[in-house]
Amino acid sequence: MFEALFFLVPILTALYYSEWQSLTASAISALICIVIAMPFVIKKPSNTELFAKDGFVIVSLSWVLLSVFGALPFVISGAIPNYIDALFETASGFTTTGSTIVTSVEDLPRAMLMWRSFTHWVGGMGVLVFIMAILPLSGAQNMHIMRAESPGPQVSKLVPRIKKTASILYLIYIALTLIMFISLVVAPDINAFEALNTALATAGTGGFGFKNDSLFSFSSYVQIVVTVFMLLFSINFNSYYLVLKGKIREAFNTEVIVFLVIVAAAIGIITLDVYFSDSLVTPTGEAMETTFGGALKHVAFTVASLVSTTGFGTVDFQAWSALSHFLLIALMFIGACAGSTGGGFKVSRVVILFKAMLREFGNLVHPNRVKKISIDDKPLENEAVHSVMTYLATYIFIFVCSLLLLSIDQRIFNPTENTFMTNFTAVTACFNNIGPGLDFVGPTQNFADFSVFSKLILSFDMLAGRLELFPMLILFTPSTWKK
Amino acid sequence: MFEALFFLVPILTALYYSEWQSLTASAISALICIVIAMPFVIKKPSNTELFAKDGFVIVSLSWVLLSVFGALPFVISGAIPNYIDALFETASGFTTTGSTIVTSVEDLPRAMLMWRSFTHWVGGMGVLVFIMAILPLSGAQNMHIMRAESPGPQVSKLVPRIKKTASILYLIYIALTLIMFISLVVAPDINAFEALNTALATAGTGGFGFKNDSLFSFSSYVQIVVTVFMLLFSINFNSYYLVLKGKIREAFNTEVIVFLVIVAAAIGIITLDVYFSDSLVTPTGEAMETTFGGALKHVAFTVASLVSTTGFGTVDFQAWSALSHFLLIALMFIGACAGSTGGGFKVSRVVILFKAMLREFGNLVHPNRVKKISIDDKPLENEAVHSVMTYLATYIFIFVCSLLLLSIDQRIFNPTENTFMTNFTAVTACFNNIGPGLDFVGPTQNFADFSVFSKLILSFDMLAGRLELFPMLILFTPSTWKK
Repeated sequence: MFEALFFLVPILTALYYSEWQSLTASAISALICIVIAMPFVIKKPSNTELFAKDGFVIVSLSWVLLSVFGALPFVISGAIPNYIDALFETASGFTTTGSTIVTSVEDLPRAMLMWRSFTHWVGGMGVLVFIMAILPLSGAQNMHIMRAESPGPQVSKLVPRIKKTASILYLIYIALTLIMFISLVVAPDINAFEALNTALATAGTGGFGFKNDSLFSFSSYVQIVVTVFMLLFSINFNSYYLVLKGKIREAFNTEVIVFLVIVAAAIGIITLDVYFSDSLVTPTGEAMETTFGGALKHVAFTVASLVSTTGFGTVDFQAWSALSHFLLIALMFIGACAGSTGGGFKVSRVVILFKAMLREFGNLVHPNRVKKISIDDKPLENEAVHSVMTYLATYIFIFVCSLLLLSIDQRIFNPTENTFMTNFTAVTACFNNIGPGLDFVGPTQNFADFSVFSKLILSFDMLAGRLELFPMLILFTPSTWKK
Repeated sequence: MFEALFFLVPILTALYYSEWQSLTASAISALICIVIAMPFVIKKPSNTELFAKDGFVIVSLSWVLLSVFGALPFVISGAIPNYIDALFETASGFTTTGSTIVTSVEDLPRAMLMWRSFTHWVGGMGVLVFIMAILPLSGAQNMHIMRAESPGPQVSKLVPRIKKTASILYLIYIALTLIMFISLVVAPDINAFEALNTALATAGTGGFGFKNDSLFSFSSYVQIVVTVFMLLFSINFNSYYLVLKGKIREAFNTEVIVFLVIVAAAIGIITLDVYFSDSLVTPTGEAMETTFGGALKHVAFTVASLVSTTGFGTVDFQAWSALSHFLLIALMFIGACAGSTGGGFKVSRVVILFKAMLREFGNLVHPNRVKKISIDDKPLENEAVHSVMTYLATYIFIFVCSLLLLSIDQRIFNPTENTFMTNFTAVTACFNNIGPGLDFVGPTQNFADFSVFSKLILSFDMLAGRLELFPMLILFTPSTWKK
């Protein structure tokens, strides 16, 4: 039902731009959703009690269904005729990945472009969090849903009531998106449609663009605004709530500080590297004059784009050195702060793992001192540490399995584009919800040439990455499907 | 003192082959060791009590000193004139890595070749385990040393007494090495010197060769014998003890079975890949006729070489596909069984992590069932699981830091050979004690072109990998150096 509601976005866009094909397609898609959903809406469940496991299953099934039905307008309008391609594109949208199978986005109707950007926006903060903010759902049990959909090792309720927490999050989100839209639209080189698209896709840290060269052809002003907002949307939204409450010092917690230090260090090193190797290259492959300021601007954009897991581009970082590639790949894995719209492993998990390592080490040196891990002066339960560690193991496990399946499939169906870096960074980019990788999935390439099987694997990775592994894995246990 | 004793190996070899320069160099090195060690031998320590931390420090300092002084014969004889190169080579030897900075090993004197192979052999099972097997050290405290030097998450004492355990391990080790030597020396195409070298380097899963094309030019018989023994030396020595005790079924424990399944699967997939892509290539870069049998033989050799972390080569796997590269890199990380002479992350740790993941997952599905992890019907303490997870985090941390430093250094001093795969696989190969990587550190290349700084980083990685991280890290804590 809510997806039918979401389809109002492409419907209204199509109306405005008189794109009748997209209009019909979106309207039909909305109707299909309503017809299929109706029986489930009418039939009230006999048992409304929710356990942790139910929260996981609700979230993962919702996201799979959102992608399955969200792909309809693309197929029906003929914008993306192949259903699997459309599914990949929609999953990439909702999960805010931004990997595309469209070879020329400039050929898509505006309604479809707006739909893509909107999936980023609503997927970024969470579809079910959105529903919770609106629907009068009762109480504490919804915490399970919120926990399963929100990124990061722990969900902090801003206020005691879940519904209020969800509303506050969405209000901050809408406000930030609006501020970004206004900051963009005042620029002379970007029109309202483009500014809205960019703001929605940046807010969700998605990265779907509407030009084939992403944001290359825009002014420095636009590029810098996007850089700043990509970073802003990578920061835990709790911090904004604290800022609004006047608690500025608390807003700069360990995770935010570590995040900013990592970003600054990466920008510093890569700017020097790019400047001295003179390796700024346009998306079409032409060498650019590499001034220090230009290098700084484009590197800051690229770093912000990858660490926030957005995936916009202004230059082709494929041309940069092995050092920069390593740093960019490391940023892709670390990702954004917990509780933001960004993906990746999350800075707070890195911090917890680092502290756990130091503690283990401290135990070796002083075996009699028992130390607890604490972050921002709050002690962390051993269980929380343990679950971050299991997250790491599971993360590696899914990553390795995906890479294995993708490598086998690429070897058989796509031997010409079959480089280790292609496969490795394709999984990295999808699993961490980034968008572009390196080599044949580099910033100027797309995912069109992957086989159906590979596209399904990568779609799974996108969903698993966005929902933080376990909700998607739980769909594969037989006991989930028993009565 | 023991290193002076070890120098008898090159001294005797030099005597036999009348290599006077190597003879003098080795004798002088032995003298230097004796002179420097003498004061420490005479002065009896006032306190002989050992704690866990002391075990770590003793082991790491011993290994650093072994490498520092073990490099002397190379420098004094002029075989490797540069001291840092010689240090890298010696650390690579003792840690059974097998990465070399020698561009043409055929130019080295035989005494030096034998010294290189011998460092593999004694480093494989552990220098301090060797000393414990010989010296009449007292009791239970030496367990700390044994634990720090033996690879794997847990050390099982075969028999209650440590000294006896150490002796049994070395007896099995010597017996297996002898059987391998005899199996080799009966072949017409390998002489006694070559067979002994190969047996020592295989037993330690080291990989230093004596020909520039490693084992390419030998007969299939020799290559197959080496393949079999590389795998045999990757298996937990406890299993051999159990076989000797007649407990055949217990010898095939979970770790051994998982190891064999991984090896078989990798050989199967890569053989098909190599066979159908027709990509057997000699170490000098010439295409070979790819029969199925030939592919199977060379792939089995390569897989055994990398998973056992030996590093011998018969073909240039650089020419293989992205799928094979991925599988080979995965094998490099997984490594051998705990309690073997092989390196890597160890199969038993992979098994423990996998079971921890399944348990976490089970806890989500059935939150009220508390399950303990058990392996081979023995329950694993939560602490043991936790310490494997911390090991993983620390492993990634050291890996990423090394790769960062190496990438920066390579970017500045070696931009032409600066590919991501070179840096990535150089650290992979050294940290996991393998030897060759891909690209510019591929199986037909060497580490000669790295800068001094990179060689020191990689030497640290080799030692950290062999001693399993914490003993080397502990050298960097200030409290270790306080009275």
